[in-house]
Amino acid sequence: MAILVLLRHGQSLFNQEGRFTGWMDIDLSLRGREEAARAGRLMKNSRLDFDIAFTSVLKRAIRTAWIVLEEMDRMWIPLLPCWRLNERSYGALEGEKKWEMEKMFGASQVHLWRRGFSERPPALSKDDRRYPGWDQRYRDIEEKDLPRTESLQDAMQRAMPFWQGQILPQLERGRGVLVVSHGNTIRSLVKHIEGISNEDIEKIEIATATPLLYEMDEPMRLVRGSLTSLLAGEKEG
Amino acid sequence: MAILVLLRHGQSLFNQEGRFTGWMDIDLSLRGREEAARAGRLMKNSRLDFDIAFTSVLKRAIRTAWIVLEEMDRMWIPLLPCWRLNERSYGALEGEKKWEMEKMFGASQVHLWRRGFSERPPALSKDDRRYPGWDQRYRDIEEKDLPRTESLQDAMQRAMPFWQGQILPQLERGRGVLVVSHGNTIRSLVKHIEGISNEDIEKIEIATATPLLYEMDEPMRLVRGSLTSLLAGEKEG
Repeated sequence: MAILVLLRHGQSLFNQEGRFTGWMDIDLSLRGREEAARAGRLMKNSRLDFDIAFTSVLKRAIRTAWIVLEEMDRMWIPLLPCWRLNERSYGALEGEKKWEMEKMFGASQVHLWRRGFSERPPALSKDDRRYPGWDQRYRDIEEKDLPRTESLQDAMQRAMPFWQGQILPQLERGRGVLVVSHGNTIRSLVKHIEGISNEDIEKIEIATATPLLYEMDEPMRLVRGSLTSLLAGEKEG
Repeated sequence: MAILVLLRHGQSLFNQEGRFTGWMDIDLSLRGREEAARAGRLMKNSRLDFDIAFTSVLKRAIRTAWIVLEEMDRMWIPLLPCWRLNERSYGALEGEKKWEMEKMFGASQVHLWRRGFSERPPALSKDDRRYPGWDQRYRDIEEKDLPRTESLQDAMQRAMPFWQGQILPQLERGRGVLVVSHGNTIRSLVKHIEGISNEDIEKIEIATATPLLYEMDEPMRLVRGSLTSLLAGEKEG
């Protein structure tokens, strides 16, 4: 029996300020660090164990993983960051305050951008300092793969090769896998794993630093998922 | 041109207390954390850059790597711990104070154990709580590979497959490689890279958190190594 835990990072400074974050590399807030430590203790006390951890290349996810692994006394497992686990790109909304965007574009439009499956926020131009092509960490990524904006569907499509190529093979070897990622990326993984429809995924919220535990049997069928039981009532961003 | 930096972890709590550490999992001291941050800033200011980092599975090395990567704004590179980069096993001396062992066994015997190439300290018995077989992190390692004591030569022999199989292939691809490891393990890598004799390696000291920079050309010949220039006068343990 292989176990998989999907974990959204703890609260970030932009979550705290009510800003869209996406691919911007914003660190955890103090509360986010405490949330991560609590998640680590929760998993340790639940006798969960991991052989490998995957994260996005964004520091709010990586720091969450560091804190969790330290709490679990598992600092010594491999930690593999990949851009395919990054948050969905919010395009030109990144860094902007949600209430200001609601004032500018209307609450229902912003809700569609945040929760819809195929709606894309306005795109970044390539000379915008927020465009990922300017960032060292994406130097080996082909330009066609660098998003200027993404729908949830887009984010799901670029996360899937990583799921198929990296995460699933570890689960097939019976390994315990921890994935520390982001609200929308985890929604897309949950959608795939649980077979949730395009419509129903709009209603799913992923709380910060709340472990979602899945147990998989031999042919990688979902035996038990704890999405419902572990989901708290917190809001995502 | 590929670059390789070998970095001994910052001062540990046992370094501070003058104890043998070996495979015991002792954290950095406060000074050790500061040393690690300084090493990170030094490398950042020297425009060094890395694509991948390797460490031992011991937290004094991993925490040093975390601090360095944070200072360099490179939290997002893969961090791969392996037991083959662990410190040399000091066997039954682990956890003991150096001056007490000198009193018990004589200073020249202790010097031989610390600096000689093929001398092994007294071995741990397998029911000793310090024996690595009791530690979860070595659960996938064959019993024959778990040391009860090691000479520098033994440590070098178990580090070499990792050098050949993991580090060298990255350098051959032109990658920037950071290796965060331990005094004796780094001595053994330096011995191999620079072709130092069994006798001369006794005189080499590796200072804590002091980057040793090597540049390699295409067929992996050593172009320039800064061992001499970067080595400070600090003592290792």
